[in-house]
Amino acid sequence: MKYELYYWPHIQGRGEYVRLALEEGEADYVDVARLPENEGGGRPAVARLLQDAANKHPPFAPPLLKAGKLVVSYTANILQYLGPRLGLVPKAEGLRFYAHGLQLTMTDFVREAHDVHHPIANSLYYEDQKVEALRRSRHFKSERLTKFLNYFETVLARGGGKYMLGKSVSYIDLSLFQVMASLNYAFPKSMAGMSEKVPRLNTLHDIVAARPHIAKYIASPARLPFSTHDLMRHYPELDG
Amino acid sequence: MKYELYYWPHIQGRGEYVRLALEEGEADYVDVARLPENEGGGRPAVARLLQDAANKHPPFAPPLLKAGKLVVSYTANILQYLGPRLGLVPKAEGLRFYAHGLQLTMTDFVREAHDVHHPIANSLYYEDQKVEALRRSRHFKSERLTKFLNYFETVLARGGGKYMLGKSVSYIDLSLFQVMASLNYAFPKSMAGMSEKVPRLNTLHDIVAARPHIAKYIASPARLPFSTHDLMRHYPELDG
Repeated sequence: MKYELYYWPHIQGRGEYVRLALEEGEADYVDVARLPENEGGGRPAVARLLQDAANKHPPFAPPLLKAGKLVVSYTANILQYLGPRLGLVPKAEGLRFYAHGLQLTMTDFVREAHDVHHPIANSLYYEDQKVEALRRSRHFKSERLTKFLNYFETVLARGGGKYMLGKSVSYIDLSLFQVMASLNYAFPKSMAGMSEKVPRLNTLHDIVAARPHIAKYIASPARLPFSTHDLMRHYPELDG
Repeated sequence: MKYELYYWPHIQGRGEYVRLALEEGEADYVDVARLPENEGGGRPAVARLLQDAANKHPPFAPPLLKAGKLVVSYTANILQYLGPRLGLVPKAEGLRFYAHGLQLTMTDFVREAHDVHHPIANSLYYEDQKVEALRRSRHFKSERLTKFLNYFETVLARGGGKYMLGKSVSYIDLSLFQVMASLNYAFPKSMAGMSEKVPRLNTLHDIVAARPHIAKYIASPARLPFSTHDLMRHYPELDG
């Protein structure tokens, strides 16, 4: 199967979780919007698929994964589709439901980290909601960041393996690597302060980063840089 | 299979989406926390399952569904587990991924509607973030409420059937009924203003409400009332 990923070409964003799975799983895929516009790429490629009036099953938002005639929407849903096909999730049904629950918990975590800099509206600039963002950031760091990280650290400890689901790498590990990498970029001081409490998460981050396919991908131009246009943003005043 | 639902006993909340599926599907289930504490129920029952230190696959938050030894967490994940077992989703794999994408989009919608009254922190009272809530509510009503409702109206129109996925009822219809009912409670003025633009959604709400198992459930004491302790809350100043 040749996969087509449709996601905004200028940020890692939610698409990055899919890219990491496709890379680790050595999938045959095209990151369509990264192609030039005159080759059918760019942001218009995403808009065309989103707004296709002939589609009887319209999706709400990217990322979208096209697999033949099927279009799967929503990051966690795409990963659950790809997991078994790319050998990135165990076979046992119970573990697949557990894995998906973990991915959805990460989805909430990432959204809460995003809402730190956009607590009022996505349609406004950060600068237009900075007062509210500063207030929200204090609660995020002391209540939510700690709660989510402690939870995932517990998951790793309880599982007793090198990876989240045991001995073998799964898409959950790739996603957790991306969550940790994004948090280390956006909240370096807070993460340094938490570091001793989440040794297993930090080790997992390093193990995933060193996996050959992931290391090669991260060192390539395909890996976009972190930025203040992305889901998680480094504004020093929100981290301090 | 006898199911056990673990969710806070005093609100509809996210557990209500699971309750509706269990009711429509005539499942054999216990809403464990609704039992008296001296019969193993109440909030401590939820806390015990959440904090069970012997569980190698710890969940993050309720609702949780126990099915034999399996514990499934996260509302949309539970519904995807129950769907095939209760005959509440079509057999085709593509439609199941589509259904799950729709459920996850509703999850985001509900979260955004919740964050209207809690834009800064869940740990604070509404009264302590009222200024920010008022500001957020204006953007929610004019940008997000309209966007999500128009999307689901389009899904219904494109599908061409009575229900979201065609001719037969699915868990998606039950969830959309709950979303509409909650919005009608929390934002009556805004919803009245939108009414002409979403005729299909309003009809779907009424069709689901009139289904025998759902109608019976809603008329029973098992259906908790809407309230300002729930995910969606009616504060007139946020609706006006």
